[in-house]
Amino acid sequence: MSLQGVLPILPTPFTSDGAVDEGSMRRLIDFELEVGAHGVSVLGFMGEAHRLAGFERKQVVAASVEQASGAFPVWVGVLAFGAAGAIEQAREAQALGASGAFVAPPPIQSDQAIFDYYASVAEAVEIPIALHDFPESFKTILSAELIARMGNEIEGVRYIKLEDYPALEKMSRIQEHAPDAIGIFGGLGGMYFLEELQRGSHGIMTGFSWPEVLVSVYNAFRSGDVAGAAAIFDRYVPLIRYEFQPKIGLAYRKHVYHERGIIDTTFIRPPGMQICDYTRAELTAAIERVGFSLNRTGAQTVAPAS
Amino acid sequence: MSLQGVLPILPTPFTSDGAVDEGSMRRLIDFELEVGAHGVSVLGFMGEAHRLAGFERKQVVAASVEQASGAFPVWVGVLAFGAAGAIEQAREAQALGASGAFVAPPPIQSDQAIFDYYASVAEAVEIPIALHDFPESFKTILSAELIARMGNEIEGVRYIKLEDYPALEKMSRIQEHAPDAIGIFGGLGGMYFLEELQRGSHGIMTGFSWPEVLVSVYNAFRSGDVAGAAAIFDRYVPLIRYEFQPKIGLAYRKHVYHERGIIDTTFIRPPGMQICDYTRAELTAAIERVGFSLNRTGAQTVAPAS
Amino acid sequence: MSLQGVLPILPTPFTSDGAVDEGSMRRLIDFELEVGAHGVSVLGFMGEAHRLAGFERKQVVAASVEQASGAFPVWVGVLAFGAAGAIEQAREAQALGASGAFVAPPPIQSDQAIFDYYASVAEAVEIPIALHDFPESFKTILSAELIARMGNEIEGVRYIKLEDYPALEKMSRIQEHAPDAIGIFGGLGGMYFLEELQRGSHGIMTGFSWPEVLVSVYNAFRSGDVAGAAAIFDRYVPLIRYEFQPKIGLAYRKHVYHERGIIDTTFIRPPGMQICDYTRAELTAAIERVGFSLNRTGAQTVAPAS
Amino acid sequence: MSLQGVLPILPTPFTSDGAVDEGSMRRLIDFELEVGAHGVSVLGFMGEAHRLAGFERKQVVAASVEQASGAFPVWVGVLAFGAAGAIEQAREAQALGASGAFVAPPPIQSDQAIFDYYASVAEAVEIPIALHDFPESFKTILSAELIARMGNEIEGVRYIKLEDYPALEKMSRIQEHAPDAIGIFGGLGGMYFLEELQRGSHGIMTGFSWPEVLVSVYNAFRSGDVAGAAAIFDRYVPLIRYEFQPKIGLAYRKHVYHERGIIDTTFIRPPGMQICDYTRAELTAAIERVGFSLNRTGAQTVAPAS
Repeated sequence: MSLQGVLPILPTPFTSDGAVDEGSMRRLIDFELEVGAHGVSVLGFMGEAHRLAGFERKQVVAASVEQASGAFPVWVGVLAFGAAGAIEQAREAQALGASGAFVAPPPIQSDQAIFDYYASVAEAVEIPIALHDFPESFKTILSAELIARMGNEIEGVRYIKLEDYPALEKMSRIQEHAPDAIGIFGGLGGMYFLEELQRGSHGIMTGFSWPEVLVSVYNAFRSGDVAGAAAIFDRYVPLIRYEFQPKIGLAYRKHVYHERGIIDTTFIRPPGMQICDYTRAELTAAIERVGFSLNRTGAQTVAPAS
Repeated sequence: MSLQGVLPILPTPFTSDGAVDEGSMRRLIDFELEVGAHGVSVLGFMGEAHRLAGFERKQVVAASVEQASGAFPVWVGVLAFGAAGAIEQAREAQALGASGAFVAPPPIQSDQAIFDYYASVAEAVEIPIALHDFPESFKTILSAELIARMGNEIEGVRYIKLEDYPALEKMSRIQEHAPDAIGIFGGLGGMYFLEELQRGSHGIMTGFSWPEVLVSVYNAFRSGDVAGAAAIFDRYVPLIRYEFQPKIGLAYRKHVYHERGIIDTTFIRPPGMQICDYTRAELTAAIERVGFSLNRTGAQTVAPAS
Repeated sequence: MSLQGVLPILPTPFTSDGAVDEGSMRRLIDFELEVGAHGVSVLGFMGEAHRLAGFERKQVVAASVEQASGAFPVWVGVLAFGAAGAIEQAREAQALGASGAFVAPPPIQSDQAIFDYYASVAEAVEIPIALHDFPESFKTILSAELIARMGNEIEGVRYIKLEDYPALEKMSRIQEHAPDAIGIFGGLGGMYFLEELQRGSHGIMTGFSWPEVLVSVYNAFRSGDVAGAAAIFDRYVPLIRYEFQPKIGLAYRKHVYHERGIIDTTFIRPPGMQICDYTRAELTAAIERVGFSLNRTGAQTVAPAS
Repeated sequence: MSLQGVLPILPTPFTSDGAVDEGSMRRLIDFELEVGAHGVSVLGFMGEAHRLAGFERKQVVAASVEQASGAFPVWVGVLAFGAAGAIEQAREAQALGASGAFVAPPPIQSDQAIFDYYASVAEAVEIPIALHDFPESFKTILSAELIARMGNEIEGVRYIKLEDYPALEKMSRIQEHAPDAIGIFGGLGGMYFLEELQRGSHGIMTGFSWPEVLVSVYNAFRSGDVAGAAAIFDRYVPLIRYEFQPKIGLAYRKHVYHERGIIDTTFIRPPGMQICDYTRAELTAAIERVGFSLNRTGAQTVAPAS
């Protein structure tokens, strides 16, 4: 019954004059369906949610939900300065048909205030809530104990998207506090996906632009073939690593999705970083070394290291 | 033609169950008219703007503008994670009749990104824009040089609400870079109001809950009576100082406005700090030592030290 | 038996070429004795301890202790990146005759790590330890509960120099957790000295350059004359407020001590802020409005408001 | 003539009761000589320099320099709160025979203050200085322009240890500003070592506990065999990635060096994180998947992917 699998974080595509591009958004959904993703996550940090107006948030969610047509769940990111704004966003996501909301913590370092924040959002909606534990971006630290307590005590809090270093250790500490209180999803570009699965994660929500790799690792692992999962994972780690460079990862990913024929432009709203020709060539080299190609459309073949 | 004087930052009053209280909001406007304020500022940090939903922001602005009825300008705070959200808020304020918008900087430390952010907001509206330089809350640092440059080069950027320490020094440095490029308003609870006027400020936007003091200082100063302005200021500094305690100032101020019969409740949205009985008594003592009383309604008499 | 009273934080005076000036340091000690201070605190933030080499720290402590000749206690600041460095500094202070050490927290946000840090320093010396709770400079937050616990459980931890906003509220919360576990000293330039005494503080450690004011307030209060203490305090608050501007306060204070004939130069090590002629005149005006003069040497007369 | 190659950042080994273990320190030096490293870097962040007392810093440097016997350069980390402390440390390193000092920036965000800081340290010694650009730990941001300017204008500033994300882009931007002004060394656990070499880096200073990999990549690349360098790099990236988990990397590395028979204990000074049995097994699996073994002493064979 519970949420499992690979739910890629999708970028928000723009037209060349910077407007939300619903057509490209729909093609992203189609692509994720094609590669066998188990759902998608929109309006995350990589989705430039912080750079969208309220009416644009609605566009992204509505187009995604409609295109998914119930084929897989659409999770929606919530980021606000306070609880009232977060509730407003979560309710809107629910009204538009989202399956769940992953919610950034409030910008305040107090366990009780964080608990109350999530409790007030969870109580305001019927869709399940995932904590988004990502202090590098949000600055707020959620202790393992607090996470476990929220999973146990707040009915609607069902999952966590865990991106606090060292994530593997933290995953185990949360489970020690509350073995089944909260379903853990990895993030961090997929960097520790193999070990996360071995430690009992439910899956991953991350922006790696070759989601077929994550799906293959996940499916091999779930079928019981741990060695096979590891062999696939290790082969593609050099590319996972390359893409996972803070601040510039989005530019890599929009470039890849654009070259793969999925989104129309590589437009990023300012002040997002762009990439230059040298970097594009460097990225291409990293892609080709693992056997992928930017010149083909559709899902590409994933294979373990020979 | 330009904006001058005392424009108190108003708290957002709530009913006892936490909803925006439009009636109290209107009484706050009436009170500021009564004390002779030159305008008001709503949806600032002290107005708990970060704790409001979008529809509540509209309530506050609409009620304030309607109640002011053009008798004085209503300035509106804008706080967003990115330019699209800030533009959406500024346009909404303009549509509702606001006279101007004071805009928090983006959460990014890059002069060019800050410049572009303010330029995009200023270009999207016709009302004037004030920079809000308050790194203690917003974390972003605006250099004196950048401020001067924005005042000179972005047409709609006309003012700054300056709350970066040491504010007096920074005021002078901005003026050195660009003598008339930008009108400077003080803040910081009025702590340096006298010296700010002497250094050429246009006035003040701050939340001190005895605005009649600020108006008296301002009027004395503008009439040429600097010694008189100083004598008033010094008398009330012990109270200005007491109220200006970070994190808890809002609770003091809601208590004062409530006791003075202006707002119905002292409700603060979580996680805002509350005050206890001891603190209320301590605050009352500080108020009475300067000759004010919590038991009278209406503007109170302001006089210089004997 | 316990430490009480006014222990001014002393600046570290330099010669005109930037070396530690022991002669001026000794005159500072003499001046504090003259005004009736109950001790002194050297090597605090305002003492530019972070800008001194190890051998210079020793110079400052040795000269201060020798000049004090046991007439009053000399407390020494400790600031290090880790426990080993802090222990080394605290032992050195003890060896040079210091009466106690006020110790900055480690740069890590973990209650247990903070506890262990202070425990290891306290166990390494025989002199008493004061926590230095000043998150604005040190970034580390000490909760009221943790402070109370350290006061109760670590034998050598006897005092706290409390400078976390809102300090008055925090003082009360510490006392609720542990009524007599830890002696509380105020700081923050003396801004809340009156209310701190009323809430039960032991005294103050701060850098206000007119310590005769703090001594007069303290003595009036301790003699039972609360109204008299308040009347003195309120009179000088405009000056206390002026001096207490973050980042530039040290320049004001070195200027005052220099003009009062106590230290030879106003040299501040880079990147400390300097003050310009305009600011010096502004400071002089603030001084004269409360009835003090920069043209007299020795302690000046302190009187309540007329 | 200039510094080139792989200069591993060494951990500081401790005895089981937490004292600096000079014997293990010397064996680390011997091991780095055996694997063909081009030098070593001691007293970095991974060397727990922030957790050492002054006398312990001397122990580490003296033992390292003596053991190296001039066979390769020993670089020493400098971390202080201000310039006087940094100069004291750099002079001490020089006096003990260090070949150079890599110096953390001051904790202040001002280009001029940072420039002056490095200039004052560089002028105080004769050994070359490397900037340490690592905002994740030090919080200070060095712009590419400032780095280039310091390389050009401060004679002693010759290198930079670059660990600011995205490091590859920043490397190119520094070179655009000043093609030959400063020699760039990578860090970041070796995560981008291949691409850094291709962009013109001089080498790497990092703590990866299998330095034979870095030496092999470097030597292949310098011999002109870029494809061979890439094939080696890609094979070991899964292990490089695993070790490079923030906050816990040191524990992995001390475990590896201990198991490999080089250091006597895995002692880490508090509050450093420890690893549990599960994690040790997970690390062992990551090591074995790339073909290494914890059960052998001495340098291990490095080979490209088959």
